[in-house]
Amino acid sequence: MQTLGYYNGSYGPLDQMTVPMLDRACTFGDGVYDAAYSRNYRIFTLDEHVDRFYCSAAALDIKLEQTKEELGGILGSMLRKMDSGECFVYWQATRGAALRSHTYPDPVQRANLWIMLRPAGVLPLDRRLKLITVEDTRYLHCNIKTLNLLPNCMAAEQAKRAGADEAVFHRSGRVTEGTSKNCHIIKDGVFITAPTDNLILAGVARAHLLRACAALGIPTEIRPFTLEELFAADEVVMSSAGCFGLAAECIDGRPVGGKAPELLARLHRYLWDEFITETA
Amino acid sequence: MQTLGYYNGSYGPLDQMTVPMLDRACTFGDGVYDAAYSRNYRIFTLDEHVDRFYCSAAALDIKLEQTKEELGGILGSMLRKMDSGECFVYWQATRGAALRSHTYPDPVQRANLWIMLRPAGVLPLDRRLKLITVEDTRYLHCNIKTLNLLPNCMAAEQAKRAGADEAVFHRSGRVTEGTSKNCHIIKDGVFITAPTDNLILAGVARAHLLRACAALGIPTEIRPFTLEELFAADEVVMSSAGCFGLAAECIDGRPVGGKAPELLARLHRYLWDEFITETA
Repeated sequence: MQTLGYYNGSYGPLDQMTVPMLDRACTFGDGVYDAAYSRNYRIFTLDEHVDRFYCSAAALDIKLEQTKEELGGILGSMLRKMDSGECFVYWQATRGAALRSHTYPDPVQRANLWIMLRPAGVLPLDRRLKLITVEDTRYLHCNIKTLNLLPNCMAAEQAKRAGADEAVFHRSGRVTEGTSKNCHIIKDGVFITAPTDNLILAGVARAHLLRACAALGIPTEIRPFTLEELFAADEVVMSSAGCFGLAAECIDGRPVGGKAPELLARLHRYLWDEFITETA
Repeated sequence: MQTLGYYNGSYGPLDQMTVPMLDRACTFGDGVYDAAYSRNYRIFTLDEHVDRFYCSAAALDIKLEQTKEELGGILGSMLRKMDSGECFVYWQATRGAALRSHTYPDPVQRANLWIMLRPAGVLPLDRRLKLITVEDTRYLHCNIKTLNLLPNCMAAEQAKRAGADEAVFHRSGRVTEGTSKNCHIIKDGVFITAPTDNLILAGVARAHLLRACAALGIPTEIRPFTLEELFAADEVVMSSAGCFGLAAECIDGRPVGGKAPELLARLHRYLWDEFITETA
């Protein structure tokens, strides 16, 4: 298959898949998701993404029918049907289907499970990103990976229209994260990243970056940082499931980073080796 | 029909309607909506709701194929197919269908139009509401009626579990609005309501309440107000398309209001007369 979709046990090419109009995703964005990339038909860091998915669901009281093992099994069997072993593997769970009412369906329904697979590879680590900064207008549940992503879409589109790759959110000058990536800085040999409060997502790639720093003896600081620090950083680093730690070359049209290329190269080598080894 | 759905020209009972999995409502909540109530097969304040709908769409750069007149025509013809003339008439527009990407589909797609009708009547004005207060964790686009409604659902469910009818949001003590209703207070003969900034929706029923005050010689103040003022109000009044100005009897279990029943009764009489006349 070139693309493959799943909804509660039904399969088909993504552009032919349909879902019930009354699914609560459609009117409220009432669901959670997660996603990972595969190489050689192996999904990188699948367990970590599945664990986070169940945490997101639990945070919103969404009850999944499948165990983690069953979900992993469905994803793996779908991946094996794909023409390419390099895919973007996306899944979401939504809070049932019912006539529109803000309150949850009563009695509680089992979640609807959605899956979408399409060919896509992770970003090569040798390119540099163009960023813009955008005031963070999102809700205060950014620690949960939900389907309420409109401000993220608006900022991503704003970046695209500005000729940039990604937007970095800030709240009154405090940097939070990108529209679909965590944001970190390197300064004076220290890797600095924001704490995992309700303003950012606890990224799997972020955790791998911190582990890489530990393994390589690079000191880390987990604390909020500001736009001033972002612009003055030795390197600005963005991470996500498909982007293990790409550095920025400019923000709002001003050159940034490029002052710690060796430290960056060590991190990149470590992260890429891990990816290649685990998907061999 | 008992219920009736519509998606881009296809019709059917709501529980049989399906939509494409790739509609951007499904993964991002990337769409806007509006809704109104009918009586005697006439949709009350339809033009005001349709106007607001097109404003919401324009705010998000969502391009509707239909003119306002065409949308009104579709809604009216669907309503005439219903078994009951008292319906909840809901419609939404979403930003096309495409493989999942935060940036908008390129080239721009015409919006998908969704419509859902089901039997429902407006709330009688003689009952009183039980409310709870909840910290407002929503995004900063509450002036746009979008499908990113998860915090509203969470707070509505919290209210239900507390045995209440609705939750009132506040930001650090500043009252914003309910999960699906505007919130106002009456104090010393003055009707007080928050300004229409990005923290609340410009409710159609709110505008009608302000017009009723003007017609009845009731002074109004448009300014932020606090939780302390809410609890100390002579009356706490909630309004929405299906709730023209219901007063509260308690908030967080504490009795509130009940101190300006005559002023409230004048408002109720005016609003109900308007509803009955316009849907005669």
